[in-house]
Amino acid sequence: MKEFNIKTPHLIDGTPEEKRQEILDYFHRTFDLDTELYETVKDDATFYMRADHLRHPIIFYYGHTSCFFINKLVLAGLLPSHINPSFESIFAIGVDEMSWDDLNKENYAWPSVSEVREYREVVRTTIAKLIEELPLELPINWESPFWTIIMGIEHQNIHIETSSVLIRQLPVEKLQSGLFSNICKEDEPVIANELVAVEGSEVNMGKPHNHPLYGWDLEYGSFLETVDDFKASKYLVSNAEFFEFIENDGYKDKQWWTEEGWSWCTYKKAEHPQFWIKENETYKLRLMTEFVPMKWSFPAEINYLEAKAFCNWKSAKTGKKLRMPTESEWYRLVEVSQVKEATDWDVAPGNINLEHYSSSCPVNTFSFGDFYDVIGNVWQWTETPITGYPGFKVHPLYDDFSTPTFDGKHNIIKGGSWISTGNEATLHARYSFRRHFYQHVGFRYVESNHEPDIRVDSYVTDEEVAISCEQNYGESYLGMSKLPLQVLDILKKYVENSSGKRLLDLNCDTGRLAFEAASHFKEVTAIDTSARFIQPAIELQKNGLLRYVIKDEGELSIFKDVLLKDLKLNDNHSRIQFMQDDATKLKDRYTNYDVIVAMNLLEEIRKPKEFLSKIHQRLNADGLLILGSTYEYKESVSQIDNWIGGFKKDGEPIRSIDGISQVLSEHFTQESNPFNLTYPVRKSSRHFEVMSSEVSIWRRKM
Amino acid sequence: MKEFNIKTPHLIDGTPEEKRQEILDYFHRTFDLDTELYETVKDDATFYMRADHLRHPIIFYYGHTSCFFINKLVLAGLLPSHINPSFESIFAIGVDEMSWDDLNKENYAWPSVSEVREYREVVRTTIAKLIEELPLELPINWESPFWTIIMGIEHQNIHIETSSVLIRQLPVEKLQSGLFSNICKEDEPVIANELVAVEGSEVNMGKPHNHPLYGWDLEYGSFLETVDDFKASKYLVSNAEFFEFIENDGYKDKQWWTEEGWSWCTYKKAEHPQFWIKENETYKLRLMTEFVPMKWSFPAEINYLEAKAFCNWKSAKTGKKLRMPTESEWYRLVEVSQVKEATDWDVAPGNINLEHYSSSCPVNTFSFGDFYDVIGNVWQWTETPITGYPGFKVHPLYDDFSTPTFDGKHNIIKGGSWISTGNEATLHARYSFRRHFYQHVGFRYVESNHEPDIRVDSYVTDEEVAISCEQNYGESYLGMSKLPLQVLDILKKYVENSSGKRLLDLNCDTGRLAFEAASHFKEVTAIDTSARFIQPAIELQKNGLLRYVIKDEGELSIFKDVLLKDLKLNDNHSRIQFMQDDATKLKDRYTNYDVIVAMNLLEEIRKPKEFLSKIHQRLNADGLLILGSTYEYKESVSQIDNWIGGFKKDGEPIRSIDGISQVLSEHFTQESNPFNLTYPVRKSSRHFEVMSSEVSIWRRKM
Repeated sequence: MKEFNIKTPHLIDGTPEEKRQEILDYFHRTFDLDTELYETVKDDATFYMRADHLRHPIIFYYGHTSCFFINKLVLAGLLPSHINPSFESIFAIGVDEMSWDDLNKENYAWPSVSEVREYREVVRTTIAKLIEELPLELPINWESPFWTIIMGIEHQNIHIETSSVLIRQLPVEKLQSGLFSNICKEDEPVIANELVAVEGSEVNMGKPHNHPLYGWDLEYGSFLETVDDFKASKYLVSNAEFFEFIENDGYKDKQWWTEEGWSWCTYKKAEHPQFWIKENETYKLRLMTEFVPMKWSFPAEINYLEAKAFCNWKSAKTGKKLRMPTESEWYRLVEVSQVKEATDWDVAPGNINLEHYSSSCPVNTFSFGDFYDVIGNVWQWTETPITGYPGFKVHPLYDDFSTPTFDGKHNIIKGGSWISTGNEATLHARYSFRRHFYQHVGFRYVESNHEPDIRVDSYVTDEEVAISCEQNYGESYLGMSKLPLQVLDILKKYVENSSGKRLLDLNCDTGRLAFEAASHFKEVTAIDTSARFIQPAIELQKNGLLRYVIKDEGELSIFKDVLLKDLKLNDNHSRIQFMQDDATKLKDRYTNYDVIVAMNLLEEIRKPKEFLSKIHQRLNADGLLILGSTYEYKESVSQIDNWIGGFKKDGEPIRSIDGISQVLSEHFTQESNPFNLTYPVRKSSRHFEVMSSEVSIWRRKM
Repeated sequence: MKEFNIKTPHLIDGTPEEKRQEILDYFHRTFDLDTELYETVKDDATFYMRADHLRHPIIFYYGHTSCFFINKLVLAGLLPSHINPSFESIFAIGVDEMSWDDLNKENYAWPSVSEVREYREVVRTTIAKLIEELPLELPINWESPFWTIIMGIEHQNIHIETSSVLIRQLPVEKLQSGLFSNICKEDEPVIANELVAVEGSEVNMGKPHNHPLYGWDLEYGSFLETVDDFKASKYLVSNAEFFEFIENDGYKDKQWWTEEGWSWCTYKKAEHPQFWIKENETYKLRLMTEFVPMKWSFPAEINYLEAKAFCNWKSAKTGKKLRMPTESEWYRLVEVSQVKEATDWDVAPGNINLEHYSSSCPVNTFSFGDFYDVIGNVWQWTETPITGYPGFKVHPLYDDFSTPTFDGKHNIIKGGSWISTGNEATLHARYSFRRHFYQHVGFRYVESNHEPDIRVDSYVTDEEVAISCEQNYGESYLGMSKLPLQVLDILKKYVENSSGKRLLDLNCDTGRLAFEAASHFKEVTAIDTSARFIQPAIELQKNGLLRYVIKDEGELSIFKDVLLKDLKLNDNHSRIQFMQDDATKLKDRYTNYDVIVAMNLLEEIRKPKEFLSKIHQRLNADGLLILGSTYEYKESVSQIDNWIGGFKKDGEPIRSIDGISQVLSEHFTQESNPFNLTYPVRKSSRHFEVMSSEVSIWRRKM
């Protein structure tokens, strides 16, 4: 199938007209391949079958890739209007596994195959015309019109692979191999696997935005991880090697399985990999369009949960700590194996890009130095749940490509399979699936004492907390400075020789003030009552990264990535101790501070008056108390009897500042006249709260 | 009792040192009089009796006036601290009639009389010292320290009178007349009353802030009312004249009473005025400290409800339309009677200021031209519920003196009584009581065909509506222009020849844009769905005045008065038609407009999409639609299916502006690129919302 030889275009080199032609060619090759794939389905009726009972019928995927092109081009403003609004609606959503609920609600009137075929051709013509007419400047980047074109092509590449898996689940009698007849005939009964040492190293992952190849948004960024020495299996785990696990009753023994895995295994009543067919104590193997006798030397195609159970079983059996590699360990394998980028090879060095087989092949077929199948043959599960690299930014034209998978439940697969083309065949490609999901994916095991540091870096979606994150770390709004920065200015103005002093922040919220103050103070204790609010601060201190989702317009969202280093706050953050604690019931150890900041605390606690009457105990003589409040007491939090002001007493109005003075004057002198800090709180793109806190500064009497 | 001759000081004339001495003298005279009043109570035990079962015992009032002085001086910052915090709390609140609930909760440990007496003397010494030491500049105005001093003195003057009424309700055997023994002995059986014509005129009420006499906040302002010709009774209604009503079974006949009056009459089982004592078919009259045989020529002292029933009965009997005078008619009587201001007389021209009697006297004793007792003898009920004059401002040191009575339930009394001194004896004095309340108050009746135009002008207290009032008519905040003024600027920019055009404002809220637009357009129709919101606009159009209460800090409030004329919006407001109506179900008559403004409407209606698809029907060809929205749809208002944008459709984000374009493009062309209006909404003194509305402008196709 060399005629499809589909390589993602170089976005920098060449002349615009060469590039235009190259992209047009790339578009047609991909479209042709996609069309050929569906030629394996013999009759129209089969298009309406569900390959998987939780997925749409094949007809959906047949229409989907073309409809995606049009929807994205309309969104990008490159097409003035839809071509077939009805098709572009029904073929738009539902790529993934659905829940039972969604299926019950579903009541689609699918168009005929010929209608969809015609539609596909109209789309093909439309896009080809656009490719010929759109302005093209090099390099092509995120903002280029051609980014949308390539996005559509790469999207089609993905679906060529995922639809091949769906087709693999249709009855063979409904299929014909067509152009996909070049299945690998080789086999041998046993290939003895072995562990090969890999020297540890620092691995830098993620690609820069000026990288010459198209990437999905989650491929960009830069993330350095230190990989310890480890050993990796020379081959992917073959069906033969995996069969030992089955023979050892691995599918019946809970001890090898994770909780998630066991739950899946018992629910599915699984006894062997999905594409194995057991007949009379022998096994057949299901390939895309046909059954063959079990190919024992082909890689075992399993989901992550099965692979993990195998590793646990094999660890016990061998006395070695075995697991799958992390994403960085896979990159280390790529490095030591000197694997070339797809665009740099003449012939694929592995079973990939449809350049060799239309099936997988024995695990000892394609060597890369000491290892086999570092790329190609089947994808390889990693231990790493997917997330964006620090600094991740959503591509605005496909804002839900990545973020829905950043949930700790989707593990990364690497390396590509025999049918992976275009972006899928590049080294930066990082796709992920739910751990119970089937694709053309196998695994390699590694031996390592290093417990993988699994970071999920999921997004703060708790609306109140995310609002606080944006208030602390996000943009400036309405031309007003952020509250924590305004408080920092107060600290700079009123605290002398701060570098020798200890600061207590009694309402640290998501922590910006603490991070800022850490550069000026010897020690910062930052307390918040709420675990919800302090958690992001702790994550930021630990990982240097904070992610949250804020409201845009209506139901639309904006995803935000904050890096401590971008804020130049990564040098002194170890001086901060973040603690979830109740500012009104402080443990004894919180004492001997030189400065206490209590911003907007009085309105959040049950007994503000009592708090003020005791706070001097935490402060060194001559220490400063910086008190700020909106005085927006809520009766749900504190009864009016406990308020410090803002009510009438004996018929006369008591302002809070007077109430504060009254309580504090015993132990404090007032350092300045009270003044106001005014600052915005973003609720959505068109809705802000602007609060004004009155600040008073008090010096503890000597 | 000439030794008390208590006249409120002139605040402008004289030298500071003369004035200081005059005020010191005024203070001591008032304090002495107050002290003498309580000398009428024979023994200490009586101080703990309740004269009225819904009022505090006498001891409260004995302590209250001194405590008031201290509390106000502390509030004003003229005293550094309280003298006796306990006294200044228990004697602070509870002047007025309480509800049963309050009394049940009450559990006061009242101090002894001698303790209170000592406290009073400490206060007297403290204040005298303050009067000698405080800076004094002339003129004395609202901001002067001496305003607080005079406020305390005038407050004491009020309580001298109101306590005299409470003492009048104590058992006579517990009392002695002391200095108040000069009761009027005169009487005669019948004084034939008659109606005397008064020529109508314009009457200007309210005094300016530079007036030379102290006034309570509700005396200030300027309010012009046209008084029609009327006739007024020559005398106040005497006990003899009122007795005819009793003899005619007036207290038993519901037809003469207002609903409120009959409710009171039956609840109290009233058969005659409160201070009449019926014994063996004869009547005695209770004076302050003693009983006397009925004084038939003294003015009948009744509450408003009894007076009103009398007028209704007498109207029926005489065939004349009789009622009490309005406040302006009383002023007209003052004018035609050429009554002098208290500070301008050598000897009081009426039974007032304790200059003649310590009781009332026959209604034919003091003549003022054609009429008797225009001032003095007893106060006179008016038909007018009290409210501030337009432009009313609360005095910050006594912010609940007036506003709690602006409820339509408190009627004004005018003219003063035999014991009215200081401010009470001035022509601008305007006190009010609940209509069922007893004081030294009688009445005069007038004959008039003019139905009094009773304006309550109560405060908008509905929080949401008041927030809108402030957004429309209040101050500017955060350096941002108000939304309606920003929209006006758009109208000015985009609408040519507006003076011949018709404008439809589809979400007029509390109406500012409509008032502004009225100066530019031929006709303005201003619609709002909510009666709550449009009501203030309608009131403003009718009366030129709008009152509302906004949140300050905590539970504290700020009272606001808005005058159409201050905003220079009083010339063209008749061009506006305010209508409560549903913008999504517009009646047929709302059509042929040249300009339609729909600001922040889409987010408030159930079916924004449907609304947009029909709005062209209301607009002339070439007419403009000005559309603005925050797109802050709420699922409680409209289901997401009806939204115009802000959601994903077929997986792609639909922004509202695109949804709008899609619907409107059939009948409209877009006049400009969409732009944002950003504006503040004040929630409290320290809390604002800042909203950003996207505005798009559309021209209806010809």
